[in-house]
Amino acid sequence: MNIAVAQSGGPTCAINASLLGVFRHATKYEEIENVFGSVNGVEGLILDNFINLCDIILDDDDVELIRQTPSTVLGSCRYKLPNFKTDSSVYETIVENLKKHDISAFFYIGGNDSMDTVMKLDDYFKANNIDIKAIGIPKTIDNDLPITDHTPGFGSAAKYVATTMQEIIRDSSVYSSKSVTIVEIMGRDTGWLTASAALLRRNYEIAPHLIYLPEVPFSVEKFLKDVREAQEKYYAVVIAVSEGITLDPAEINDFQSGKSDNFGHKYLAGVGKALEKIVARELGCKVRSIELNVMQRCSSHLSSKRDITEAERIGGAAVKTALDGYSGRMMIYRRVSNHPYNMRIEHVDVREVANKVKYFPVEWINKLHNNVTEAAIEYCMPLIQGEQNFRMKNGLPQHYVLRTALPHHKREGKIE
Amino acid sequence: MNIAVAQSGGPTCAINASLLGVFRHATKYEEIENVFGSVNGVEGLILDNFINLCDIILDDDDVELIRQTPSTVLGSCRYKLPNFKTDSSVYETIVENLKKHDISAFFYIGGNDSMDTVMKLDDYFKANNIDIKAIGIPKTIDNDLPITDHTPGFGSAAKYVATTMQEIIRDSSVYSSKSVTIVEIMGRDTGWLTASAALLRRNYEIAPHLIYLPEVPFSVEKFLKDVREAQEKYYAVVIAVSEGITLDPAEINDFQSGKSDNFGHKYLAGVGKALEKIVARELGCKVRSIELNVMQRCSSHLSSKRDITEAERIGGAAVKTALDGYSGRMMIYRRVSNHPYNMRIEHVDVREVANKVKYFPVEWINKLHNNVTEAAIEYCMPLIQGEQNFRMKNGLPQHYVLRTALPHHKREGKIE
Repeated sequence: MNIAVAQSGGPTCAINASLLGVFRHATKYEEIENVFGSVNGVEGLILDNFINLCDIILDDDDVELIRQTPSTVLGSCRYKLPNFKTDSSVYETIVENLKKHDISAFFYIGGNDSMDTVMKLDDYFKANNIDIKAIGIPKTIDNDLPITDHTPGFGSAAKYVATTMQEIIRDSSVYSSKSVTIVEIMGRDTGWLTASAALLRRNYEIAPHLIYLPEVPFSVEKFLKDVREAQEKYYAVVIAVSEGITLDPAEINDFQSGKSDNFGHKYLAGVGKALEKIVARELGCKVRSIELNVMQRCSSHLSSKRDITEAERIGGAAVKTALDGYSGRMMIYRRVSNHPYNMRIEHVDVREVANKVKYFPVEWINKLHNNVTEAAIEYCMPLIQGEQNFRMKNGLPQHYVLRTALPHHKREGKIE
Repeated sequence: MNIAVAQSGGPTCAINASLLGVFRHATKYEEIENVFGSVNGVEGLILDNFINLCDIILDDDDVELIRQTPSTVLGSCRYKLPNFKTDSSVYETIVENLKKHDISAFFYIGGNDSMDTVMKLDDYFKANNIDIKAIGIPKTIDNDLPITDHTPGFGSAAKYVATTMQEIIRDSSVYSSKSVTIVEIMGRDTGWLTASAALLRRNYEIAPHLIYLPEVPFSVEKFLKDVREAQEKYYAVVIAVSEGITLDPAEINDFQSGKSDNFGHKYLAGVGKALEKIVARELGCKVRSIELNVMQRCSSHLSSKRDITEAERIGGAAVKTALDGYSGRMMIYRRVSNHPYNMRIEHVDVREVANKVKYFPVEWINKLHNNVTEAAIEYCMPLIQGEQNFRMKNGLPQHYVLRTALPHHKREGKIE
């Protein structure tokens, strides 16, 4: 028998580690002959675009390089499967391709939307008595998947956010005149990643002085009042703000495209620039906004070793789960203890996760709605621990690039 | 006798290393009793706001932490001295304060504008037979100071730009549909830092496919033609663009504040967003712009060990230069050889540097004006070598913060 694995959704620093976990664990089983990588997520299943990972991951060098490479070596997609009851043709194509390569288990590494794909594939397989297992492996820097304690990729993104925030605080605190620095952080409509900026408190950092998350209402008047109060204490006020906070459309429309992806999610980003304009207008002081942008999801040079190690383990555990006969499951982390940190890997029905969102606990937000409590720091701190031992070349981190896959990228346009 | 040192202008990762160089070298001389740090650059000289560094840098722990802390531990300023022939009052105050503390040499770590300050102080001292030495120590991520082979701070910024560009390339290359990613890089009206994105070629990276520097004219039509041609070869086109390229004001005005600093330099930034809008309008494909923002000057977690080591050496050499009797000089690097890399530290008349700009050589830009040649890579490659051994705490780099200086920051407003 063979198995297949694919990567989907937005990149993270840990998604290639989970791919390695699947590959390396699978090679321990005699009954698994080949591990196929599906190029560009589920698109590869539809277009019969597979790469045999056994042909390309040849030695420890390859493993080490893939582990330290951010984003997805197999490419990604934002393709949404239709309901098979109204349109089964694409499912028939997928099954035909999987059977052609004797693939009896499919592992999909992704976020909320990818779990929708796992659920639909599993529904179709079961409804048609097709013995192919579909297992979801979580990943997202947003940390917004239900049930699992945290998601692979989040710890590295949190480490990046806290480290970079600290450097921005140093940078913004040099002048003797009043200034406001607004740092816009990803996380869609959840505040997990933005809250990680508070980790600096453990290292006696006072800033960021204000932290705004999308789980509580945002008011411009209240925001300006908070900034004015902070300016009475600090010359350089530093603010962390989630991309997902809700601003008056009149304030934000200049800065957002209004476009959405295939899953109907609006492209966010822009609140930092909007708040910058508001502060300049209302407070008249020097103000700068900084978007951490894609760097917060792809800065593998700053990844959390614990995150990468766990991501590899959960990939391996997924293979065992499929071989144990399960399908339609998503792998999860269950935290056992904080001191010392300990977690175990389990799995749940993917239907409990697909298209659902886990929000940042409102009880971890302070009463003034402009910061987070110690509980948030206690939760996040273990996830950013440890640094990867990085392989450098010419003074730069070395990356793994799947050159053989490049021609396949030319197949664009076949899927609409 | 005592000496004083100050830091000025925009932050870098190496400016604290130069401070350490001054301090540590000075402590080797018996005749130097105290090393005073002037808070917020030349503002400290005017406000009599000094910190005795001998009281706060007590052991190797302090030295290590200061070395790995970005930005300026003593604060900074953008204060421009008047012409002493028309207004000497501020000079009289400075001399009074320097004499009060028996300071006979002043070291100013900064860029083009700070060298203007060194020149003016030296002119005033000499015109009035005041025996105080003024020595400039270069620093700027822009690498735009004349005569010196390169500037402290540039190597670390170049390492950040190349490393981050590589991660952005991975991030932007995952989908099977056409996209354009525009990365806006600092450097004011010189292209040195943007050119460092080309270092990736040594590691077999093809992107960034297009690189635009301000030293040659920029045309939107030509840019769109370049992007269209690149799209024929690559699905994900990645572009590095200097903040200083000249765009039609109608295209850029929405994205720039139009404000200037005390030296009359316009705040740049915004060309990335402007080009994003143009690409979206003209090519209709997915497009994203990324501003590396202050991270490119303060990401000390990714600094070049060579840069930091050299920055400390040049600070030490400045002390020797003053004790040798020189004044009105700026320290420089002179490159001796590339293979193996070797440089020596010398000094030149600060008047040859102050308010002057060293542009990126046009002969290092390709004929099509959309990339740089191998000579640029050969020049830059030695400067990004080596990584600092970082001290971490709670999974985050540890920073040094001069808490005792904080109350002095309250003295704002005395200088207009």
